Amino acid sequence: MASLVLKPDPKLDLVLERDIDVPVELVWKAWTTPEHMKHWFVPKPWTVTDVKIDLRPGGVFSTVMRSPEGQEFPNNGCYLEVVPNERLIFTDTLLSGFRPSPKPFFSAALLLAKNGSGTRYTAIAIHGNEETRKQHEEMGFHDGWGTVVTQMTEFIKAGFKPAA
Amino acid sequence: MASLVLKPDPKLDLVLERDIDVPVELVWKAWTTPEHMKHWFVPKPWTVTDVKIDLRPGGVFSTVMRSPEGQEFPNNGCYLEVVPNERLIFTDTLLSGFRPSPKPFFSAALLLAKNGSGTRYTAIAIHGNEETRKQHEEMGFHDGWGTVVTQMTEFIKAGFKPAA
Repeated sequence: MASLVLKPDPKLDLVLERDIDVPVELVWKAWTTPEHMKHWFVPKPWTVTDVKIDLRPGGVFSTVMRSPEGQEFPNNGCYLEVVPNERLIFTDTLLSGFRPSPKPFFSAALLLAKNGSGTRYTAIAIHGNEETRKQHEEMGFHDGWGTVVTQMTEFIKAGFKPAA
Repeated sequence: MASLVLKPDPKLDLVLERDIDVPVELVWKAWTTPEHMKHWFVPKPWTVTDVKIDLRPGGVFSTVMRSPEGQEFPNNGCYLEVVPNERLIFTDTLLSGFRPSPKPFFSAALLLAKNGSGTRYTAIAIHGNEETRKQHEEMGFHDGWGTVVTQMTEFIKAGFKPAA
């Protein structure tokens, strides 16, 4: 059973593509290890104070982001498809155990492909309507998701150690 | 990676359990073949006029149900987890390609287990809140899902041929 080919719809989806010079296996590790995610998953000076990962379909994927002013923003969702080193799909439309969420917003696909010794990194944010896509764009999708890829790459290159 | 154990919540979920005397492989076939589903998937005299199945995570699972008066009711969703002869999970909370749906209502899990030469058949309807569970119960979940299991079992025993 081959995975479904995802076809982003420019009216509904947002796409970030990057070629980064760290191997896919380490990108996978950065994305699926709670302790690692805390160091790169939001643009600084925001921080991630909690990460819950149960890496299988229907398993919890939740984070708590904290603003520089100290306000906390929980994001609750679950994984939908987990193909190590290739494909990680999750959503906030369903909570753990595939339970419909009270605050559905979007699904996200992280697609990784080997590119020499580096990684072709593609992130797709999948929305239900144009309004939600626009809202996500205005929240700073491109800057935000782009910044965290840079932060992640630096964190990986530093041997999964946060900058001093 | 073992599948997530689903734990139904009596306040939020509806569960139908049956022991039926047809083998799991044929139940799986009945549930995953569009032409077969048309013959049993709604309580008669309602009919199913269309079934779309792309049997993989994110693949379309849509049906159109037709009332005896001729009104058609489309149901659009996608598969979430596909483990042949064991586990079929789908939702109307996401459309094909994991896209958030405009009309999220519930997720459903069909769990099959060998029981001698027959099947232990468990269907779980997973809701986001008590109101939705109650609405589904009042729509006739237990009667409806129970009736279609009986229809399916008879259809399988007749060699996947509809009653004359």
